[in-house]
Amino acid sequence: MLKITILVGNPKPQSRTLKLAETLVDELLVAGTYDLRVIDLAEHSSHIFQWPSPEMAELNQAVADSDLLVVASPTYKATYTGLLKGFLDRYAANGLRGVTAIPVMTGADLSHSMGMDVNLRPLLVELGASVPTKGLYFVTGQMEKIEEIVAAWAAENLAVLRLLQPLVMGMLGKNPETDVQTASDASATVSNGAGA
Amino acid sequence: MLKITILVGNPKPQSRTLKLAETLVDELLVAGTYDLRVIDLAEHSSHIFQWPSPEMAELNQAVADSDLLVVASPTYKATYTGLLKGFLDRYAANGLRGVTAIPVMTGADLSHSMGMDVNLRPLLVELGASVPTKGLYFVTGQMEKIEEIVAAWAAENLAVLRLLQPLVMGMLGKNPETDVQTASDASATVSNGAGA
Amino acid sequence: MLKITILVGNPKPQSRTLKLAETLVDELLVAGTYDLRVIDLAEHSSHIFQWPSPEMAELNQAVADSDLLVVASPTYKATYTGLLKGFLDRYAANGLRGVTAIPVMTGADLSHSMGMDVNLRPLLVELGASVPTKGLYFVTGQMEKIEEIVAAWAAENLAVLRLLQPLVMGMLGKNPETDVQTASDASATVSNGAGA
Amino acid sequence: MLKITILVGNPKPQSRTLKLAETLVDELLVAGTYDLRVIDLAEHSSHIFQWPSPEMAELNQAVADSDLLVVASPTYKATYTGLLKGFLDRYAANGLRGVTAIPVMTGADLSHSMGMDVNLRPLLVELGASVPTKGLYFVTGQMEKIEEIVAAWAAENLAVLRLLQPLVMGMLGKNPETDVQTASDASATVSNGAGA
Repeated sequence: MLKITILVGNPKPQSRTLKLAETLVDELLVAGTYDLRVIDLAEHSSHIFQWPSPEMAELNQAVADSDLLVVASPTYKATYTGLLKGFLDRYAANGLRGVTAIPVMTGADLSHSMGMDVNLRPLLVELGASVPTKGLYFVTGQMEKIEEIVAAWAAENLAVLRLLQPLVMGMLGKNPETDVQTASDASATVSNGAGA
Repeated sequence: MLKITILVGNPKPQSRTLKLAETLVDELLVAGTYDLRVIDLAEHSSHIFQWPSPEMAELNQAVADSDLLVVASPTYKATYTGLLKGFLDRYAANGLRGVTAIPVMTGADLSHSMGMDVNLRPLLVELGASVPTKGLYFVTGQMEKIEEIVAAWAAENLAVLRLLQPLVMGMLGKNPETDVQTASDASATVSNGAGA
Repeated sequence: MLKITILVGNPKPQSRTLKLAETLVDELLVAGTYDLRVIDLAEHSSHIFQWPSPEMAELNQAVADSDLLVVASPTYKATYTGLLKGFLDRYAANGLRGVTAIPVMTGADLSHSMGMDVNLRPLLVELGASVPTKGLYFVTGQMEKIEEIVAAWAAENLAVLRLLQPLVMGMLGKNPETDVQTASDASATVSNGAGA
Repeated sequence: MLKITILVGNPKPQSRTLKLAETLVDELLVAGTYDLRVIDLAEHSSHIFQWPSPEMAELNQAVADSDLLVVASPTYKATYTGLLKGFLDRYAANGLRGVTAIPVMTGADLSHSMGMDVNLRPLLVELGASVPTKGLYFVTGQMEKIEEIVAAWAAENLAVLRLLQPLVMGMLGKNPETDVQTASDASATVSNGAGA
């Protein structure tokens, strides 16, 4: 089972930003092939700056162990929130190495949509995550079209990942013994997926 | 055969930046499994701002048709060069869709190394490219260690791509009929790679 | 007389971007108190990558000698043009030291308006310019309201500069002998301005 | 008296980052001409995400009322801290309008020094502050040379502000009646400064 985590940096709980991230996971993955954990930082904000904090340590570990991390933040001052950054600041260097991340942001209009690619994406890359797709920026006035918009985003970005496949497999051919195992795992996953 | 393109934005031809990009391709891929084209923009700079330009159109097409694009620039004013940007400005929106890109930059020291992630990476993403790895920033005073440094970078980033595999395959399971074909292509590529 | 320079990075000559910069200078300054030079890089693009180039050297010098530099670019790929960057790349480190610059950008909509503050402003600061105001981002579909929009921008930003005055004067008090001269120059300029 | 505020975003109290900001104020201003308030966010971190919070409201007001704001943060994940961002997120749009700000950052080496200009500066500009100088980035291994380094920074940036003066005064000439008052205030300040 794939481990999927949604990390929401909105100081208000149960936000539209959280709803957006959930919709994205629904559209991207086949039900039954993954375990989903949702971390709504609004529920943990009183611990963000505490050291040490067993609660924070457990959350940090869960995020770092994810196969896919959907990092979702509203736009505050043209970028991600301090709440999200406070949580991510707790990692050591490369603390998200091995995690594939998708940046997701919401805002009142498009005027700050670039914050996703010039601020949130570099932050995730700095932490060692791989960010192979575009980010998803969503104007909150369009909640009634959320499924349509997210589905279109998912179709476009899955097509990109599909094109990425032969190349990645080719590059992995450089270390054949490891790759045979990986390729076999991957095929198995696809078979399961295809049967779902 | 994979189509690999090196695009170099140094106004001086045959630069260390070009040499770095070539070393990276050598380290990442199995000889004999790809066709490589090197585009040294220094040799085409007199056409960058000409409209129309058959020469530029051919280069733009070649870059857009790549499976893997290594985009290499020296650091000028804390970011990529105007020469590189002038070339990329010729694309329409999403002109690099379907291309996997690796940003590569050189500089005199590390003080501007962030330019790669806050400037060059967002530019490639804006153009529609997928940028799943870290970028490679290289301090030009270390040319004598270039192979060692690039090999370490390649090992680290191939490991990241390997971890990305099961997830991508899982997500592609969402559209099974297309995936069967993709998976079969991918396996074939790996077999070739493993035998090389 | 103040030396004002407009530097336009649009590959097409006589652009709306140029018109916007001219409107801004009209709104900011009192006619008769300044000399204006307009450099439309579209007319010089064939020399941008030539070394050496007496034509480019003269333009670079004129820009560096400005009291106020209005740097205007259309939005290409979510940031300034390669043409503008190619021109600015010709400077040595801190080549715009002592120049006060105002970043100005045009675009089809607001979705890339942040490029002005995350890309163009840092580039000017890297070159040593002082950028004390906000930038002016203008949606090209609003050309019929250009004077109204620019006047509102000018009023807001002049108010900011006015608030900045006592502080700057206070800080300059640290080196009194130099400041007496500066203060006297400044008062003279104001008197002229007040009489205009 | 000028109102000067130091705002420190280090989760650890009494940090070297705070010491750096204090040194900068000492070097920039004439003793006796200003009131200084130091806000060390480490002492208030448990309130950052509380709504409402009279304690936070008072701090936000004090910062917004400053003539000069020195915003100081260590480098976490190549940018400012989540603690600082959490505090600044509490402002409404343009909440720092009328404030002149100097960005100050500390880090272990220069590799993330650009974070100051691509992240912290745009954040302050987004909030409406004027940021006319360079930022000050300080490598913490050089604490024994702190006064020398800060003095050199102050000299360079005061020179920039001095060059800015005639231009600003010229632009303010556009609204003469307001300017007379401003100019008189400014002269008075300079006289005080000169006599100190």
